Amino acid sequence: MVIRATVFGENVHENKNPIVRSIYPDGMHETIAAALREDAGIVSSTVTLQEPEHGLTAEKLAETDVLLWWGHVAHGEVSDAVVERVVERVWQGMGLIILHSGHFSKIFKRLTGTPCALKWREAGERERLWVINRNHPIAAGLPECIELENEEMYGEPFSVPEPMETVFVSWFQGGEVFRSGLTYQRGSGRMFYFRPGHETYPTYYDENVRKVLRNAVKWAYNPGPAWTAITDAPNVPVETALEPIEERGPRLHQAGEAGYR
Amino acid sequence: MVIRATVFGENVHENKNPIVRSIYPDGMHETIAAALREDAGIVSSTVTLQEPEHGLTAEKLAETDVLLWWGHVAHGEVSDAVVERVVERVWQGMGLIILHSGHFSKIFKRLTGTPCALKWREAGERERLWVINRNHPIAAGLPECIELENEEMYGEPFSVPEPMETVFVSWFQGGEVFRSGLTYQRGSGRMFYFRPGHETYPTYYDENVRKVLRNAVKWAYNPGPAWTAITDAPNVPVETALEPIEERGPRLHQAGEAGYR
Amino acid sequence: MVIRATVFGENVHENKNPIVRSIYPDGMHETIAAALREDAGIVSSTVTLQEPEHGLTAEKLAETDVLLWWGHVAHGEVSDAVVERVVERVWQGMGLIILHSGHFSKIFKRLTGTPCALKWREAGERERLWVINRNHPIAAGLPECIELENEEMYGEPFSVPEPMETVFVSWFQGGEVFRSGLTYQRGSGRMFYFRPGHETYPTYYDENVRKVLRNAVKWAYNPGPAWTAITDAPNVPVETALEPIEERGPRLHQAGEAGYR
Amino acid sequence: MVIRATVFGENVHENKNPIVRSIYPDGMHETIAAALREDAGIVSSTVTLQEPEHGLTAEKLAETDVLLWWGHVAHGEVSDAVVERVVERVWQGMGLIILHSGHFSKIFKRLTGTPCALKWREAGERERLWVINRNHPIAAGLPECIELENEEMYGEPFSVPEPMETVFVSWFQGGEVFRSGLTYQRGSGRMFYFRPGHETYPTYYDENVRKVLRNAVKWAYNPGPAWTAITDAPNVPVETALEPIEERGPRLHQAGEAGYR
Repeated sequence: MVIRATVFGENVHENKNPIVRSIYPDGMHETIAAALREDAGIVSSTVTLQEPEHGLTAEKLAETDVLLWWGHVAHGEVSDAVVERVVERVWQGMGLIILHSGHFSKIFKRLTGTPCALKWREAGERERLWVINRNHPIAAGLPECIELENEEMYGEPFSVPEPMETVFVSWFQGGEVFRSGLTYQRGSGRMFYFRPGHETYPTYYDENVRKVLRNAVKWAYNPGPAWTAITDAPNVPVETALEPIEERGPRLHQAGEAGYR
Repeated sequence: MVIRATVFGENVHENKNPIVRSIYPDGMHETIAAALREDAGIVSSTVTLQEPEHGLTAEKLAETDVLLWWGHVAHGEVSDAVVERVVERVWQGMGLIILHSGHFSKIFKRLTGTPCALKWREAGERERLWVINRNHPIAAGLPECIELENEEMYGEPFSVPEPMETVFVSWFQGGEVFRSGLTYQRGSGRMFYFRPGHETYPTYYDENVRKVLRNAVKWAYNPGPAWTAITDAPNVPVETALEPIEERGPRLHQAGEAGYR
Repeated sequence: MVIRATVFGENVHENKNPIVRSIYPDGMHETIAAALREDAGIVSSTVTLQEPEHGLTAEKLAETDVLLWWGHVAHGEVSDAVVERVVERVWQGMGLIILHSGHFSKIFKRLTGTPCALKWREAGERERLWVINRNHPIAAGLPECIELENEEMYGEPFSVPEPMETVFVSWFQGGEVFRSGLTYQRGSGRMFYFRPGHETYPTYYDENVRKVLRNAVKWAYNPGPAWTAITDAPNVPVETALEPIEERGPRLHQAGEAGYR
Repeated sequence: MVIRATVFGENVHENKNPIVRSIYPDGMHETIAAALREDAGIVSSTVTLQEPEHGLTAEKLAETDVLLWWGHVAHGEVSDAVVERVVERVWQGMGLIILHSGHFSKIFKRLTGTPCALKWREAGERERLWVINRNHPIAAGLPECIELENEEMYGEPFSVPEPMETVFVSWFQGGEVFRSGLTYQRGSGRMFYFRPGHETYPTYYDENVRKVLRNAVKWAYNPGPAWTAITDAPNVPVETALEPIEERGPRLHQAGEAGYR
């Protein structure tokens, strides 16, 4: 059993900003995909915003067990049709890992139903991500905290739903805190938000960050068949009720009619 | 302190279907609003789909503490702009109570990020809503279960996020079960889904159902000021950091620049 | 409607340690009770470890809507019988607010089912409690963070169950973070853990801390009747089943017999 | 990687009640252990109440990845010392699956901090366990519901904490419902409560029930090292703080002193 991970990279700053290009000459998505390949149980590929349908065709998504998402400056350029396609695949069971500035991606806002807003400061300050539950699968093999010497600050309040689990909480040098690792379930898909990864710092080369990415892919993987019927609203005819019942009272619908949506 | 509740009624079947009209001659929304008025601490008004902006102007929403939503056949006719306006008010602190077939309303799907699908059967069968936590504010004053002799069946799986609390679970005569009362928090707004209320049955005349509606309005009410800044993503300048820090390393943004969304 | 709050004070260091006595000459419990009295809707009284049954007789608990608990050096001296009595009252609907070093109290460990352990350092360092949800009732009227110039550090991992809500997260000068405000529900009782309050600092004179105490009392208050039957496991005889059923198959129990516990 | 499951059987009714003995001639624990062995990835063994330390020595627990617990009439005979030992192993990462009448076991009450009470009726009625999330690992491979022709009824309210996830909800012929599959996290251990399994019916021979047992063992398995330090409360000396700080203000503890518990 090998997990098929797809990394979406916005791939804009890598081509416009010399600092970002010097850190991630092949694009951030390639660095992330390479981190995943260090685990023999994961195969990873990449897609970018610039490809037709951002590379996320129905076929590609059908072959994706876990999708990782890095975007920042071009959230608005992501096609609404692709967003809906990704969202449906999550409901059906695909795992989704939202990275850093992806908090404002259409997909994360769509799946949480919240603003996903936060405070921020770009000062290259020190961040420490403290592990809340040492034996959470996403924290496997980590020290008690991950220290990143230079990162962008994200500060609370982070307007997201209460998570299923808080996996990391960050300390920032300038005085703020942030819930940096949060898990959610949407339909049969698992979702993980992971905070670090500002494009002007070499965060995705950090060994602990790379370990989190691999752990998260394995945690988010759902081996079950795609739950394609999750959006259906089937009528159960009276005749096939599990307990014998007789129809009583008035009704709106004729037998076999679809419900209203 | 009086809570201002607004009841949105789709108001379609009441005008087209003689059965529905005979049960709810003034519209379901008026029956629901009247149930709320039995509590001296609640003032209620109604709006309908047919009004301009469905009656849900910015002014009306600003004066609404808790919105109740009943819709069914015309979910698709609800304006997307109004949906976004309602969603923002929920994030800011307005309570929201979604009734029955509102599970498929744009607003509920938008705020949950899930399909909100379920099984259904219109056979006038018996339903019992069992109280899970007797002292939950929404269940105050109820017997151990609410029995409705004729209701539409909704069956699991109900594809919504794990709730904050499960307040009711329904038993149906034909053999199914359903999580009938679920609480959520979105931003600073509280949301409650309450299952019963098919339009061909006199459900909203049931004394226990009416008590739940009143209890839910009181539970969902947030006395705090509207959190209008909840969608902002403010930059915290280095100079005003709570702990003195120096800017280090490269950056994308110039001082005072807005973030990307 | 007035909420009756009872403050339990361990009252040991106040009598042994001159620093603590100089800060809290009447005992920490009196300072806490005075903070509550600043709200006209709360009446507060105090009990201490040294009283018979620690002042927490069945009568006293029956007249208590919300109990606040401060203990530290003498957790082991709290009577197990009193602990069980308090726990039952929480299940029945009494609110419980656990303060600071009360994380290791018998009562908190009993109600969470977890070790409730943490890291600590007594260095008088700066703490900032960041508000996660501005409109949570417990955070009403607070600025975006509470700053305490001198406090003991508590650091993650804090081995408690995932909370219902995370209300505060603390930043510490020495580099750690802590989930400082956590809500739980146990039976029909609400429970809130609030971190600050080391006895060698004047924390309970801080206006924002005092506001949190009052807010928390109002949040934890359950106006419903005590759910005294919550520990019962009643048999429902076949003859009184809501749906007519016939007894089938073998059985262990005779009619009217109590279940095994 | 093979998961080591241990099945605790109370083993009382099997030896006293001819009906139970005829259904489970080798004891319920042996039937359960045999169900687990149908998965090549699980090795299972059994222990009983009657053995010294109920067979749950520190050595046995150290070699147990997941413990399954079936008890009913003799909850009170389980040694408190063994209960604490089991609880600590759960905190350290051992999975725990509580079966049927184990809702009133000392271990489940200890780990939930709640009464764990419910309604019951022993009438051999029909039960249907509806699957809430089809792709939850515990529900893998199941039909949309598990139908058991004869079972004991358990009815809400079930006085337990809100679960992490509701996996099953039961329908009973006599009119009640019950949350039949609930997940919890305690420390680094996962816990699952699974309702069916009254001793006078052949429930543990049902293929779907057996599948749930195997699925639950795999779900509850934590491959990480035991978190043996989870009950420690380590002091972090000022000199080793991650950020340089100076001690300020008064203190209670001398350097190197243990905290109070």
